[in-house]
Amino acid sequence: MTKEYDILVIGAGILGLSCAYHLKINNRTKEILVVDRLPDAAQGNTARSAAMFRNMFTSQDNLMLARSSVNFYLAMQNSGVDLGLRQTGYLWIMSERQLSKSEPHIRKMETAGIKIARYDCSELRHRLPSLKTAFDPLDEESRLMNLEDIAGAIFGPECGRLDPEKLARFYMNEFLKLGGKVVFGTSAKRIIVEPKEPLGLEGEPFVWQDSRIVGAVLHGEINGEVRAETTVIATGVWNNEILDPIGIDGRVKGKKRQIFTISVGDDSRLAGLMHNKNFNSLGVLPFVILPKNLLYIKAVNEEKRFWVGCDDDLNQPFVNIPDPEIGHYRADTRYFEENVYRILKAYLPDFEGHRNPDQMWAGMYSYNTLDSIPFVFIENGMIVAGGGSGSGIMKADAMGRLVDSAYREGENSEAELYGGLHYKLNRIGFKSRAVEREDWVI
Amino acid sequence: MTKEYDILVIGAGILGLSCAYHLKINNRTKEILVVDRLPDAAQGNTARSAAMFRNMFTSQDNLMLARSSVNFYLAMQNSGVDLGLRQTGYLWIMSERQLSKSEPHIRKMETAGIKIARYDCSELRHRLPSLKTAFDPLDEESRLMNLEDIAGAIFGPECGRLDPEKLARFYMNEFLKLGGKVVFGTSAKRIIVEPKEPLGLEGEPFVWQDSRIVGAVLHGEINGEVRAETTVIATGVWNNEILDPIGIDGRVKGKKRQIFTISVGDDSRLAGLMHNKNFNSLGVLPFVILPKNLLYIKAVNEEKRFWVGCDDDLNQPFVNIPDPEIGHYRADTRYFEENVYRILKAYLPDFEGHRNPDQMWAGMYSYNTLDSIPFVFIENGMIVAGGGSGSGIMKADAMGRLVDSAYREGENSEAELYGGLHYKLNRIGFKSRAVEREDWVI
Repeated sequence: MTKEYDILVIGAGILGLSCAYHLKINNRTKEILVVDRLPDAAQGNTARSAAMFRNMFTSQDNLMLARSSVNFYLAMQNSGVDLGLRQTGYLWIMSERQLSKSEPHIRKMETAGIKIARYDCSELRHRLPSLKTAFDPLDEESRLMNLEDIAGAIFGPECGRLDPEKLARFYMNEFLKLGGKVVFGTSAKRIIVEPKEPLGLEGEPFVWQDSRIVGAVLHGEINGEVRAETTVIATGVWNNEILDPIGIDGRVKGKKRQIFTISVGDDSRLAGLMHNKNFNSLGVLPFVILPKNLLYIKAVNEEKRFWVGCDDDLNQPFVNIPDPEIGHYRADTRYFEENVYRILKAYLPDFEGHRNPDQMWAGMYSYNTLDSIPFVFIENGMIVAGGGSGSGIMKADAMGRLVDSAYREGENSEAELYGGLHYKLNRIGFKSRAVEREDWVI
Repeated sequence: MTKEYDILVIGAGILGLSCAYHLKINNRTKEILVVDRLPDAAQGNTARSAAMFRNMFTSQDNLMLARSSVNFYLAMQNSGVDLGLRQTGYLWIMSERQLSKSEPHIRKMETAGIKIARYDCSELRHRLPSLKTAFDPLDEESRLMNLEDIAGAIFGPECGRLDPEKLARFYMNEFLKLGGKVVFGTSAKRIIVEPKEPLGLEGEPFVWQDSRIVGAVLHGEINGEVRAETTVIATGVWNNEILDPIGIDGRVKGKKRQIFTISVGDDSRLAGLMHNKNFNSLGVLPFVILPKNLLYIKAVNEEKRFWVGCDDDLNQPFVNIPDPEIGHYRADTRYFEENVYRILKAYLPDFEGHRNPDQMWAGMYSYNTLDSIPFVFIENGMIVAGGGSGSGIMKADAMGRLVDSAYREGENSEAELYGGLHYKLNRIGFKSRAVEREDWVI
């Protein structure tokens, strides 16, 4: 049973749905099908993300992609669509060493027009009184952990959090209204490569034939071949499973990241920390990044919970295809206690005693290991987008526009981002990649 | 049982042994151990290669790495070491379209001082009389295969073939003479990552500890931990298996390539083709590259055999870890007959009837999919080299010198290549990679 579409989008995470929406709105007569192996939209790694957004980047590319996307999200929310968007701000807390290393990057961001407030240590203590800013040199624990004293912080008031499932659902609903089709519970078993001029011989395509991608063999709610003029791959960390068999580099590597939540409950110290009035008009603690392992604290006042996670690079395996059986999507309390909790309580003693997270989960961080900036490339009838590297949700709108531009005008086109800025697609491909390196990684 | 070395080199292919040799000769007091899972030197993909070398590259990087390496091999052979090196030349046969597309690249190579002869079609026919240069437009077969008429060729007289096993053995013997140690039948089960300041606690390293690579757990002739100040990874397509578990991107993807041999036997036409006197003083057919799928013919007069293979990209799977069980190292006659043989006999009818290769094998081509130029990078006590992308053997000497430079002076050092040229190591790393793109891919 063979079905035909103009465009087949594989993956209904935030990226696939943004692609589907922008493709459909600009190509209204085209028949577009989105499939996903999971039973609903954005239930893979999109749902497992820390789901923050920021406009603090030094790379012009990151800045354009994130700023235009977030401006679109803000405009949608202001027009009445609830995307759970809250500009709580980002508070990057730093040691003397980090601050001085960061100074040129902070200045670059200020020059680019990014709103940034600087707090010295005394102002920071005033705004966040329970933060521990200095360690006793005789304190064995902080010495062993090589924890640095805090010298100050920078605050980005335009950053914040959003609800990626609501955002994905917004894109999906708009896409459906325009006549697009989404089928869940359907995985791509195989990408179909065929000769441009088939001879009807067994063993095709032969090496001497010109071949292209013409769709996929699906399994689930739809079974069998679905042919499409263009196939869009938006499968994140699953890129390798989908593309390795046809010899295309999916350009991502996956790593597990864990998130733990701590309920405020009846702990008045945590309640005080949560309802901090010194940073934003919401009266809620901003997203806090500590000076060790980029450990972050996300205050979700609606849930009365903090989300906590940290960076984890060397020795955290790359996973070719995540396997739920062996725990790639499972977090563990021991990891929390030995790694996260020790840093957390050292800088924020309010968390002392909260050794048992009330919820926890893991997701796969999909790296572009080359430069941590996303990519879009075209390959014989296929468009591959990905490489979010921890900031995919906040760039998803721009990525959808780039994919649409790739579809309509090819790899040398210029996409118009939300707000009217133009972005050259070949900057973000691999044939002549020219993205600006990101320095804002403390 | 823990053993300690200054340097542990994993992989005794051509790359690992060149590294071992250059490391030892420049660091004579250092204790260096090379291990390989196979029973002898260069028995993996080194032995499965087409084993050619060329100085025809447009990329300054490729040119410096290959030219200096081949000059070293030539000097060694001229000093009495048999490396099986034969400057038979490379004959790139091209269509009108290919020639005109290649013209700027050919000119660039000539400007770089690379010896290149140009043959128009009539001269080419004179030198290689049995070559079919034009197809009847009514010929169904050549039309279906989209075979182009031949317009001419370029000839690189300084290119040729060598014996990579002899070269590997040369490096190994010199390394052993200097006191180095090589152990075969020993695989690296696991790279050891440890905190720089271990606390002796279970679960180390924790994320808040600074960690580094301190050796590997071996299995085979040596069993257990082998600790080393520096671990060198030269495992080619096995990089992923070794490095994924510690979360380092090995920067390669592997693809199967097949080689088929055809005996001259008592076929006088093939004997005539083999003993062509019109290209080199050896009186043997040069390495011929046809205008379709980069199909190549290597004449090995000592064996009275031709080796034949071809390019194969889209639809040839990337393989994370090659598995002999499922045929990653097996060639098949059907592939020969349907793909290789059809192109071969169309341009060189002397091969007509030779449908059954007398030998065949497959190997893994280890791609750096970013730019097909090799890399050397340093990561926390480890040096990773690789990415040969089909031209690893001919660059192995330079790569060994780069790894030694990385070891002695770090990633910002300048390596001295054979012949005295200096090469900046950070060109070929990933932090600020600056290799010149290669255009000489027809």
